[in-house]
Amino acid sequence: MKLASLKQGRDGRLIVVSRDLERAALAQAAETLQAALDDWARLAPKLQQESDDLNDGRTQGVFTFDETACAPPLPRAYQWVDGSAYVNHVELVRKARGAELPDSFWDDPLMYQGGSDSFLGPHDPIELADEAWGIDLEAEIAVVTDDVPMGTEPEQAAGHIKLLMLVNDLSLRNLIPGELAKGFGFFQSKPSTAFSPVALTPDELGEAWSDGRVKLPLVSRIDGKVLGRPEAGEDMTFGFPRLVAHAARTRPLAAGTIVGSGTVSNRDADGGPGKPVGQGGRGYSCLAELRMVEKIVTGEIRTPFLRFGDRVRIEMLDAEGRSLFGAIDQEIRRYDGR
Amino acid sequence: MKLASLKQGRDGRLIVVSRDLERAALAQAAETLQAALDDWARLAPKLQQESDDLNDGRTQGVFTFDETACAPPLPRAYQWVDGSAYVNHVELVRKARGAELPDSFWDDPLMYQGGSDSFLGPHDPIELADEAWGIDLEAEIAVVTDDVPMGTEPEQAAGHIKLLMLVNDLSLRNLIPGELAKGFGFFQSKPSTAFSPVALTPDELGEAWSDGRVKLPLVSRIDGKVLGRPEAGEDMTFGFPRLVAHAARTRPLAAGTIVGSGTVSNRDADGGPGKPVGQGGRGYSCLAELRMVEKIVTGEIRTPFLRFGDRVRIEMLDAEGRSLFGAIDQEIRRYDGR
Repeated sequence: MKLASLKQGRDGRLIVVSRDLERAALAQAAETLQAALDDWARLAPKLQQESDDLNDGRTQGVFTFDETACAPPLPRAYQWVDGSAYVNHVELVRKARGAELPDSFWDDPLMYQGGSDSFLGPHDPIELADEAWGIDLEAEIAVVTDDVPMGTEPEQAAGHIKLLMLVNDLSLRNLIPGELAKGFGFFQSKPSTAFSPVALTPDELGEAWSDGRVKLPLVSRIDGKVLGRPEAGEDMTFGFPRLVAHAARTRPLAAGTIVGSGTVSNRDADGGPGKPVGQGGRGYSCLAELRMVEKIVTGEIRTPFLRFGDRVRIEMLDAEGRSLFGAIDQEIRRYDGR
Repeated sequence: MKLASLKQGRDGRLIVVSRDLERAALAQAAETLQAALDDWARLAPKLQQESDDLNDGRTQGVFTFDETACAPPLPRAYQWVDGSAYVNHVELVRKARGAELPDSFWDDPLMYQGGSDSFLGPHDPIELADEAWGIDLEAEIAVVTDDVPMGTEPEQAAGHIKLLMLVNDLSLRNLIPGELAKGFGFFQSKPSTAFSPVALTPDELGEAWSDGRVKLPLVSRIDGKVLGRPEAGEDMTFGFPRLVAHAARTRPLAAGTIVGSGTVSNRDADGGPGKPVGQGGRGYSCLAELRMVEKIVTGEIRTPFLRFGDRVRIEMLDAEGRSLFGAIDQEIRRYDGR
């Protein structure tokens, strides 16, 4: 099934969305997605029935699905943690900062605790006070779990993955080096994160969901131009169950925990960094990678970070070219206080 | 006023507690503390009236206040961030790890994003799988905010501080070096955090709340023995308004955001690290500091980290010796899965 939240109050209003993203209906089994996740074993079958009814044309009160009226599926969450499972990305971005990649990064997932109190809707503007912070998109996939007991192993963690979403894990690149040097991880360098309109159950992906990975390309655009379409199923060093288990090693995860994949990133066929789309490559899910490749190849960074007025679009299409999650489509704007 | 949450469901049941912590009544204006914070401007005056009525003996349905029946005031929250405002503590703990303290730490607050989905109640056991992780308490103070707009300055941030609590920001010391070396901050090294039974409005502290600091000693005990009673109002390099403003620099903070002080820590009169209680000093709010001082003074670390069966107690008393927030009182236990 596919679920979304209309903008309403702090937690939105849960709706069931048709598979083709054309129609929707207010969910009857739960008012909010958090409420559904808090009691998932009992409520998911009811929501599934509502979804089946909607897809089969048996529902009353159907309305046209409008992505722009959507909050994130979870407008605020109790936990948002982000892995960095595409180690290729980590290697490139660290190279850009002149930092080494320890060998352990290929065996032990890297993960940071993100802010989960103030997410952005899929079509909300990205308002920031200063372009000089180095605004960058990061296109990712995330899963949403139910309650995960402390110490859960990857084999069991897979069963706790209930929903998938797309993410724009915005980064302020020029604030990162100073912040990481302080040793406590990201903070100001991570502004509010945005999510796709739709959260879907893994079965909606059919065979594209396997081995704890999503085997489809993730398409990122800036001002309409394709920045990248890397295959999310390739080069993902750690699958989602492993990431969930990593997060749950020393504490339980509460229902509604969001676990991100990190920036989706492919290596080139020769094992080196992927090529830009303009050169026939699959491109990138963030500007930091493109800039690093420019520097490696030409000795010079040519592409600036995002500027006020730029538009970022992140989407995943199925084999027939249909949007699965709806699009994240956001304009960067100058924040002028309130 | 003083508020607490009885253990009930995922978000507890809000109660109003008498100033002397003897009596309580179910809150009428809101069912949960998060609900109260979501609409604080409208609901706080009603809760204040309920508090006044309770303290003046005008309330029906009063019951004996039982700390052990309490969840944390916010059993789960949308955000928990922890500053490290007692830079003396940071200096000592880094010294213990052989890490330098950059000068900037005295001007720019250090802050990490904590997990907020699975807090521990004040009398809940601390269940962990492995003693060898180096289990340590960290006694702190935290504030709870209403909605804080992005870019709020410290002068305005003060007005967004609505409640105060005590914190046991548990750390797994032996997991920290490896995790910080990876560059993304704490994750597995920070298990679930515990909070005091009571959250109180700043006015309950009278003159002890001034300059964005709490000017009272914070008492920590292990198995009944005092580990420390440092003055929380001294050596706090950054007051709470500055910490809140730091957290809100690049994103808004949603109502119910918890901002911690970091481990309360005093320097000695001569400017050096504080002395242990046994030597007439004010002692410490965590074992890492005591161990570091032992190493500096005797060349040898004598005190182990917490062991299964140990009990940690954290409390703050007013000038007359009355407990203000109730006590955090937790036993360390072996986690045996479920």
